[in-house]
Amino acid sequence: MAASIFTRIINGEIPCHKVYEDDRVIAFLDINPLSPGHTLIVPKEPAETVDKLSDESASAIGRVLPRISRAVLAATGAKAFNILQNNGAGAHQAVFHVHFHIIPKFESGQGLGIGWKPGKLEDGAALASRIAAAI
Amino acid sequence: MAASIFTRIINGEIPCHKVYEDDRVIAFLDINPLSPGHTLIVPKEPAETVDKLSDESASAIGRVLPRISRAVLAATGAKAFNILQNNGAGAHQAVFHVHFHIIPKFESGQGLGIGWKPGKLEDGAALASRIAAAI
Repeated sequence: MAASIFTRIINGEIPCHKVYEDDRVIAFLDINPLSPGHTLIVPKEPAETVDKLSDESASAIGRVLPRISRAVLAATGAKAFNILQNNGAGAHQAVFHVHFHIIPKFESGQGLGIGWKPGKLEDGAALASRIAAAI
Repeated sequence: MAASIFTRIINGEIPCHKVYEDDRVIAFLDINPLSPGHTLIVPKEPAETVDKLSDESASAIGRVLPRISRAVLAATGAKAFNILQNNGAGAHQAVFHVHFHIIPKFESGQGLGIGWKPGKLEDGAALASRIAAAI
């Protein structure tokens, strides 16, 4: 499999505007931001989707979400933000290397647009049992 | 501050369809799902938003994302999914206790709707420096 554009960034073959790096994680600005401060947090492990990511990398990403979020808010003045992570082309994934978006949301509306058409939970007990049994 | 509905679920005062629990995290089905299998992952720590969450709770949530995602996919047959976490009323947050949504996306379109209007990164070096300095 060819190295993803994010692996090439991690390897220093492609430049980025880096905001954070540690042994397992790199974070940099999205070059096509939905709003100022739109940041990507990427595991160095080249898993395509979160369900294929190691617990260790997933934990390392989780750990840095609060501090990077605080820094993005401080630098942009945003008061609200979304964290989004897409898995699969059907779910809006474009680069097949796990990445978490931190997307500031401004009163102007700049930021992530969310379409929310909720239904009503049915047969929840049976479904929860099936999921729990698969963990 | 009054206990959030999620704290009351954690304390067993309100029922839920639980799929996972450990010392720091609980996961259960959303009662108003965007699609079958829509699951919430919630830290037991009652932080309102991710920027106020401890590194330990954030790490614990990250760690369980792969395994809960795999179980949701296995139980529902979905091939794609989104992870979404909203911070602030302006960013579509409704319950002010951190929660991560795992939302299966189906070919029918059922799941999260995403509005994506990207711009072009400008003054990236200066912005990245300001964010990095705030971490």
